[in-house]
Amino acid sequence: MGEFDLIKRFFVREPSQAGVVMGIGDDCAVLVPTPGMQWLISTDMLVEGRHFLSTVAPERLGHKALAVNLSDLAACGATPRAFTLALALPRAEEGWLAGFSKGMFTLADAHGIHLVGGDTTQGPLNISITVMGEAPAGTALLRSGARAGDDIYVSGQLGDARLALEVFRGSISLPGAQFEQVRRAMECPQPRVALGQALRGVASSAVDVSDGLIGDLGHILQRSAVGAGLDIDILPCSAVLAAQPQALRRECSLAGGDDYELVFTAAPEQRAAVQRASEQSATPVTRIGRIEAAAGLRLLDQEGQVLPQQFSSFDHFKS
Amino acid sequence: MGEFDLIKRFFVREPSQAGVVMGIGDDCAVLVPTPGMQWLISTDMLVEGRHFLSTVAPERLGHKALAVNLSDLAACGATPRAFTLALALPRAEEGWLAGFSKGMFTLADAHGIHLVGGDTTQGPLNISITVMGEAPAGTALLRSGARAGDDIYVSGQLGDARLALEVFRGSISLPGAQFEQVRRAMECPQPRVALGQALRGVASSAVDVSDGLIGDLGHILQRSAVGAGLDIDILPCSAVLAAQPQALRRECSLAGGDDYELVFTAAPEQRAAVQRASEQSATPVTRIGRIEAAAGLRLLDQEGQVLPQQFSSFDHFKS
Repeated sequence: MGEFDLIKRFFVREPSQAGVVMGIGDDCAVLVPTPGMQWLISTDMLVEGRHFLSTVAPERLGHKALAVNLSDLAACGATPRAFTLALALPRAEEGWLAGFSKGMFTLADAHGIHLVGGDTTQGPLNISITVMGEAPAGTALLRSGARAGDDIYVSGQLGDARLALEVFRGSISLPGAQFEQVRRAMECPQPRVALGQALRGVASSAVDVSDGLIGDLGHILQRSAVGAGLDIDILPCSAVLAAQPQALRRECSLAGGDDYELVFTAAPEQRAAVQRASEQSATPVTRIGRIEAAAGLRLLDQEGQVLPQQFSSFDHFKS
Repeated sequence: MGEFDLIKRFFVREPSQAGVVMGIGDDCAVLVPTPGMQWLISTDMLVEGRHFLSTVAPERLGHKALAVNLSDLAACGATPRAFTLALALPRAEEGWLAGFSKGMFTLADAHGIHLVGGDTTQGPLNISITVMGEAPAGTALLRSGARAGDDIYVSGQLGDARLALEVFRGSISLPGAQFEQVRRAMECPQPRVALGQALRGVASSAVDVSDGLIGDLGHILQRSAVGAGLDIDILPCSAVLAAQPQALRRECSLAGGDDYELVFTAAPEQRAAVQRASEQSATPVTRIGRIEAAAGLRLLDQEGQVLPQQFSSFDHFKS
């Protein structure tokens, strides 16, 4: 393999992690499940030009590739355990590998998740990660649990990643410091793992916002067979986005994509518990609407007027 | 997404499988581990032109993509449980998807393994599968357990896949029926899952032969810190390969690649048990050498003469 020996140097670490009998180095990894826990699994594949731009720094790409997977574990309230990385590279460049692996492992270490398997091959750049986590039996947050009367919440802020993309597309421009801020939101999303775990037994449903609030909340509505009203003028956003024209602000917040925040529902009697989960995980949470029995999603402005539905789900870099 | 709705039609099936609380359709799959079992995990990424040729039929490609992963579970003696599929496609073609999914699910159903998560995206063709299996705590077959004095065995036959590749490369030619036979070995490998499970508690080490016998046996020697003597003129091969010139036959058997047979070691007192495992799993097994304390691999011909080591590990379609 030659050049691919280089790759090993950046990805193989000592398998001294708790619960890992065998990490990288055999045909399979061997893990010890925690008694009483169920296993949660998710996989995401990132392709250049579609899920990330060629301008992204390798360190941020390594971070983001794992972050979008951790975000799926977060949405289910899982505790991260292990992940595998399959990587196709046009060529093995030491600088790129050093940056990518540093970004990935820094985030992995912050969440106590271990790389236990991998495959590297020559080919068009493609990053495929599978994450595994655990949650006590029956406590995983699913999309199907929302009930009429539940509150709807979102974590953090929405829309900055989309705003950065618009700058890259050349459709708007921002002062340098503002651009750096929103670019960071796009390239370095922080998966809401601690919040997800704190919401076990509190939230009735959850999903992560990867394709835009409307599209992902739509998954909850569909799987739960309910509708919702959304107060779109109180959606949390950064000062940078708040200063943009209303139409752009709404577009970015509602159909932005790449937010990696959690949108979740909880019964009104859980409001204090939601607040505690927010504080415990040091993650801001905003109540943005309510689940209703009538099917469909209604967007309401600050006067309570229903707006026409003109936003479609974000499809990464397709357009 | 439009065209990618088509993909769902071929990959999403009812999550009515035992032990699967949630399959495809949420942020994560949710699985129930079997008490007392450890989890075994492996991942493989297949890229066109490197791991398969563009001439392969979609149904065979679907089979092979899962087969090479099941072979890793087989090498560890694991019982298959679940897998995820991440798939990048230049475009969604109904005929291709129908064939690919049929080949994949036919093999999956034969081994009782369930597709529990997936991601599809537009991009250069790339197939990334992660498999998960179980084995009773402490019984997983590892590469590190070989001891001096152990016998070395291999399952099935070696070299046909490499012989087929040589035909594709144009370096040799074969009559049509013979070509179809060896092409089938290359495109439709049968993972030795039942044999692997039957060898738990019998074999001292195991590995699957994906990069050629010498290279993969080398992994056992390295991880076990031992050497070996290999009787290369008794290596099991098909009648088609047996009829080839000695040099080609040896090259294909020893450094062929893409065999997906198991090479394993067991103490001499386990010979009857190995035979039972072979019968129980209806998988032929041949004793091909012995583990020795002295480092290095010695290739012996039928007169017991040591041959010069002139074979290197196979690196798929690199050359």
